[in-house]
Amino acid sequence: MTGLLNTTIRHIGPLDAEAMSSAEMRQLQLTKPPKSLGRLEALSIQLAGIQGRPLPTIESKAIAVMAADHGVTAAGVSAFPAEVTPAMVFNMLAGGAGINVIGRHVGARVIVTDLGVNADLSAAKGLRDRKIRMGTANMVDGPAMTRAEAIRAVEVGIELVGEEAERGLDIIATGEVGIGNTTAASAVIAALTGQPVATVTGRGTGITADALQNKVAVIEKALVVNRPDANDPIDVLAKVGGLDIAGMAGVFLGGAERRIPVVMDGFISSAAALTAVRLCHECVDYILPSHVSIERGHQVVLDELGLVPLFDLQMRLGEGTGAALSMSIVEAAARILSEMATFESAGVAGDPSEADADLTR
Amino acid sequence: MTGLLNTTIRHIGPLDAEAMSSAEMRQLQLTKPPKSLGRLEALSIQLAGIQGRPLPTIESKAIAVMAADHGVTAAGVSAFPAEVTPAMVFNMLAGGAGINVIGRHVGARVIVTDLGVNADLSAAKGLRDRKIRMGTANMVDGPAMTRAEAIRAVEVGIELVGEEAERGLDIIATGEVGIGNTTAASAVIAALTGQPVATVTGRGTGITADALQNKVAVIEKALVVNRPDANDPIDVLAKVGGLDIAGMAGVFLGGAERRIPVVMDGFISSAAALTAVRLCHECVDYILPSHVSIERGHQVVLDELGLVPLFDLQMRLGEGTGAALSMSIVEAAARILSEMATFESAGVAGDPSEADADLTR
Repeated sequence: MTGLLNTTIRHIGPLDAEAMSSAEMRQLQLTKPPKSLGRLEALSIQLAGIQGRPLPTIESKAIAVMAADHGVTAAGVSAFPAEVTPAMVFNMLAGGAGINVIGRHVGARVIVTDLGVNADLSAAKGLRDRKIRMGTANMVDGPAMTRAEAIRAVEVGIELVGEEAERGLDIIATGEVGIGNTTAASAVIAALTGQPVATVTGRGTGITADALQNKVAVIEKALVVNRPDANDPIDVLAKVGGLDIAGMAGVFLGGAERRIPVVMDGFISSAAALTAVRLCHECVDYILPSHVSIERGHQVVLDELGLVPLFDLQMRLGEGTGAALSMSIVEAAARILSEMATFESAGVAGDPSEADADLTR
Repeated sequence: MTGLLNTTIRHIGPLDAEAMSSAEMRQLQLTKPPKSLGRLEALSIQLAGIQGRPLPTIESKAIAVMAADHGVTAAGVSAFPAEVTPAMVFNMLAGGAGINVIGRHVGARVIVTDLGVNADLSAAKGLRDRKIRMGTANMVDGPAMTRAEAIRAVEVGIELVGEEAERGLDIIATGEVGIGNTTAASAVIAALTGQPVATVTGRGTGITADALQNKVAVIEKALVVNRPDANDPIDVLAKVGGLDIAGMAGVFLGGAERRIPVVMDGFISSAAALTAVRLCHECVDYILPSHVSIERGHQVVLDELGLVPLFDLQMRLGEGTGAALSMSIVEAAARILSEMATFESAGVAGDPSEADADLTR
């Protein structure tokens, strides 16, 4: 097999065991009871394994926001009209969206990529124009896009990581904007996991209980009409996915290939992460969880991937906001490993071996 | 009643309802589905109520680390020797402790106050010297300190907030260092809540299961010997508390008086928070929870105070590390309220009233 997608997958390797071992040993020498910084310590060790160095650094940060429209909005699955997608893209380019605020706060640049917004955005300043089509087709009537389009969208995500790595990139987060994309995410997750649609479908931006019933029925119909192959993630993306989800899947794969940690945002990002891991299982070690969304179905994917979120703040905005917020925690984990004094350097008595490290509540 | 403690308590008032109402209305106008930023929105509204302005700011930040020794260490309650307390104070003054790293990361100054370290630290540079006595007495044999000493320690915390407020202070976190202080914290919590000692006593820096049995027995004995009055929090502090815990209680009270949010760290901070709230119930509205510690008993106090932690990273270092880490989340909440565009300013369609705001998982 050739092509960017396949070569990327072939280049994804395991975490660096030697770097992880060094980081783990250093954690035990730092001036604190062993393991008393809990998951921050585990995170620092994982970062060492991802970046392939005993002292990982988190300085240059980016948030990849993938923008695309979804033809399935014609079926009345969202509380907001599809015209909100391009309006929110302009809001992001102007710095006024939630992701811009949190991005500034954590020191991460926000990169907005147009993969398929259903509007002419060619004049939009600061937008990364990689438009593949004017939004997907309505999956209730047939495939959302062609297989070639799905592959191209994944490759846009892979290429983004490469371009950003040239500028310097220690960590990247996934984000998205696209009215209707929780519907596509639920369809992808149901198709890949075999879970009932109702189990993985929630109220998105805030539809009513009645509208949720319709949303579930729409997704069930799309799955019947398209019969996506659970063993072929690209087929699933093409038939019931979205250009934004495909693009984010590419970011996960590109990050894993280049040994750059990728922070997963909420529900829609998790559909992309699951797709990426189904394409290449080793990719999962390069994914950092952030929050758990209020959108039901997110926990299903977290469990499927074996990831435990860092926090639960009842968020459901998407855009990458939860992932961006967690970058501050990830950066703290890296800095602790590098910057804390050791018992020896600080002249603090207290052999860590005297203390029991594995406490539980 | 006169004295700094009593005047402080008298000056603590309710949150500013008007500022909270303005903040809540603004949240609904920001470019996102209503309530989609979950607890970040609630936090921003609480901050408005605390600071008494519709757009709260979190810029100038401090972490108050209270240092003190505990005579009860003679009873073998800790995995580390008491000499570690002054050594860790020097480590903090040199910038090498966990709290220094996280403080730098979130942009907060670390203020280390000696309330009762059992060593001559008069030559230590950068230390705030407010030593009351050379550590507490062993509470197994009688009161840890006098009532006057306990009040003085609380007032040191109140004064600290006043001094820092002069320099500019938008938020403050509580932290501590003192071998043996989980024992004092458990004793205070058991005395104030009436919970069995075993329910609120954990393994601190990492004692073995056998040593935990001894720790519980020591605390039970101290409660029998001293008979602290649950309705008199100062009596509890004096008989079975610690100078560090008393100092932090003062920070909670001083913050509430000056309308400055106080972020509560883990288990030992929670004993101080509970004491402060028992001295003045309205103080609780000015306390922001951060993480839940692995130390059992912390959740008991969180429940007692009606506080829900922002995250659980299995931390148990103390020093203020969990509180400092959460400052980044609190600052994000404030910035979202101030910096996000509104539907009107961004020209985004989508009447928020069309969407249901109160979703659950």
